Amino acid sequence: MNILVINCGSSSLKFQLIDSASEEVLAKGLCERIGIDGRLVYQSEGNEKEITKEHMPTHTEAVKLVLEALVNPKTGAISSLDEIGAVGHRIVHGGEAFTESTLITDEVIAAVERVSELAPLHNPANLIGIEACQKLMPGVPMAAVFDTAFHQTMPAEAYMYGIPYKYYSQFKVRKYGFHGTSHSYVSKHAADMLGQPYESLKTIVCHLGNGASVCAVKNGKSVDTSMGLTPLEGLVMGTRSGDIDPSVIEYIAEKENFEMEHIMDVLNKKSGVYGISGVSSDFRDIEAAAEAGDERAALAQDVFCYRVVKYIGAYAAAMNGVDAICFTAGLGENSGETRKKICDYLGYLGVELDEEANKRRGEDLVISTESSKVKVLMVPTNEELAIARETAALVQK
Amino acid sequence: MNILVINCGSSSLKFQLIDSASEEVLAKGLCERIGIDGRLVYQSEGNEKEITKEHMPTHTEAVKLVLEALVNPKTGAISSLDEIGAVGHRIVHGGEAFTESTLITDEVIAAVERVSELAPLHNPANLIGIEACQKLMPGVPMAAVFDTAFHQTMPAEAYMYGIPYKYYSQFKVRKYGFHGTSHSYVSKHAADMLGQPYESLKTIVCHLGNGASVCAVKNGKSVDTSMGLTPLEGLVMGTRSGDIDPSVIEYIAEKENFEMEHIMDVLNKKSGVYGISGVSSDFRDIEAAAEAGDERAALAQDVFCYRVVKYIGAYAAAMNGVDAICFTAGLGENSGETRKKICDYLGYLGVELDEEANKRRGEDLVISTESSKVKVLMVPTNEELAIARETAALVQK
Repeated sequence: MNILVINCGSSSLKFQLIDSASEEVLAKGLCERIGIDGRLVYQSEGNEKEITKEHMPTHTEAVKLVLEALVNPKTGAISSLDEIGAVGHRIVHGGEAFTESTLITDEVIAAVERVSELAPLHNPANLIGIEACQKLMPGVPMAAVFDTAFHQTMPAEAYMYGIPYKYYSQFKVRKYGFHGTSHSYVSKHAADMLGQPYESLKTIVCHLGNGASVCAVKNGKSVDTSMGLTPLEGLVMGTRSGDIDPSVIEYIAEKENFEMEHIMDVLNKKSGVYGISGVSSDFRDIEAAAEAGDERAALAQDVFCYRVVKYIGAYAAAMNGVDAICFTAGLGENSGETRKKICDYLGYLGVELDEEANKRRGEDLVISTESSKVKVLMVPTNEELAIARETAALVQK
Repeated sequence: MNILVINCGSSSLKFQLIDSASEEVLAKGLCERIGIDGRLVYQSEGNEKEITKEHMPTHTEAVKLVLEALVNPKTGAISSLDEIGAVGHRIVHGGEAFTESTLITDEVIAAVERVSELAPLHNPANLIGIEACQKLMPGVPMAAVFDTAFHQTMPAEAYMYGIPYKYYSQFKVRKYGFHGTSHSYVSKHAADMLGQPYESLKTIVCHLGNGASVCAVKNGKSVDTSMGLTPLEGLVMGTRSGDIDPSVIEYIAEKENFEMEHIMDVLNKKSGVYGISGVSSDFRDIEAAAEAGDERAALAQDVFCYRVVKYIGAYAAAMNGVDAICFTAGLGENSGETRKKICDYLGYLGVELDEEANKRRGEDLVISTESSKVKVLMVPTNEELAIARETAALVQK
């Protein structure tokens, strides 16, 4: 069955058409600047990437353009929309309502709306994508795959903050965690690569991209993760601060005479390795600057890696041990330097990095030595494939 | 030499008179409700505790009453003020200016004033205590012993937050850490108890009281600690939240229509185990309630212990290993249940708790088994003695 995977942002729409049997990507692309000036990037299997300016005032026009491109007689991947068996939608926040992926019904849409205030930038955009697809592909089954669902197995001691209980009971303030599709996909795949049963493995997944999080997966279940109520908590990221003393917010707000909104904007968009280095939010630029002698870029790398190290250590303790540590996403898949800096701290766990294997990038590979007590793996993530799999499974159930 | 140790709060003054040669406490006590209705608690060696209501509009009168009590012909510990060789003042925040204890001079006072905005509730009170003592004991040498100084050895990757660099360079926003006198005293003492050189040991100190922090001490130097710019960061404490997603502040402020000051007050005074349990900020009350079946009290215990576990794990990684884990302060010294709950996670490090030894309380004791790879110790902290030692060493230099 062909699954159309849709990931809607507030002014963007990413898509992939995946054959769920062969797991081949038949076509993929992106609508950008929806509601502004509109741009469609489209590439079908075996063809060049096409970039066209298109009029797309709303997400409905964007979905329409995607569907037209998919059945375009010249470069289309399919000849008719009937060949799309289902649509899988990435939804950022499922709150406590969704512990797994689900077929989309009116009740599901209403529940996603109810948790929108937990992710005001993301859930409404995700819902617009669902609505647009429903309008243009009536009758095609659709699934909602949540970033948070995988983490709903966390125990209370991991998800409760040390704040008045009523903020949990009344306002649902707790740790949710994100990147769940990636953490789930990578941890499962790592168990396969090691030939070990997923249900009896302690794995730590380091999803290190511009957004970054670490997840502790024990016996196939997420037991803790570094992102929290929102994706701001945890690691130092491209532009996000991650963990800080909560007092820092008050201190800077007073010093700068900032309103709450402004200071949160600084923590989300001007902080992280970008804030420390002043160079870039892109780790490749920072690596280059550090190599060229930029001290603040080197500091940003050190702070980033050290924070990852502390989360790995914390989660090894949370699970009373660890069998495998996985690196994934942009930096995790491609930066041997970052992986090495992190693993250099982990000798006490019995981690031995295979320096030759660690030079490789972007492939499924065990990068620890034969004798390493804890296995280290590089596992390219594939959130779209994971969404397609979940969707196919729901539709074929 | 007799050292008068002074710890001034905004409306209180704690003191101990310690003979630095024998390390005996000759007298100790407390002035409470300074500027309100005044109360002096005084006890000299071998005598009963005396509690008297006293008129003490300012800290100067409080210090005067303490000095009078110390030379009182009946219960005084000394016969003349000349027998006080030096005064040791506890100062909360030394910023980056103080990496160790120092004799108090006009320059030191000015420097402590300059970092007061980092600890607006504490440093001004500490300075008032110094001024009062200088007025009443002119010519007596005095030392400043900082809560932050021990942590000034932290490397940049540990003390830098992932925020714009200018907040560090202009406003000195960074991790400072507190409880330094306790972490230093306990880690040194643990090395002595183990008969191992302090300079080649990796120790994690868990100072678990109403305020609580964890410290990683590598080769005699603090390399990381859980409190930050202020004592709000890190563990879940009696009434303090510790680490939260920074977005929680904005979320609750909006929901409750709170000003920044109000929400910070909630995080400092209404949160922690008190906030979760709704029972008490006192761990003894919470333990009792949990035993009686109170689910939220049990949850508060779980959240508290789990957070300690994660910091121990993080610091084991930060130091690439750990030789000794120390428990100190109210809960650390007295709650075998808490120590056991924490150590139950740490089998992967080779921690084996001696369950019999762990039943003891409030004494210097190794509480791990002979074969435990990582030693676990209970070490009652003694900040006053540590301050007296530092002061005597400075005066006798």
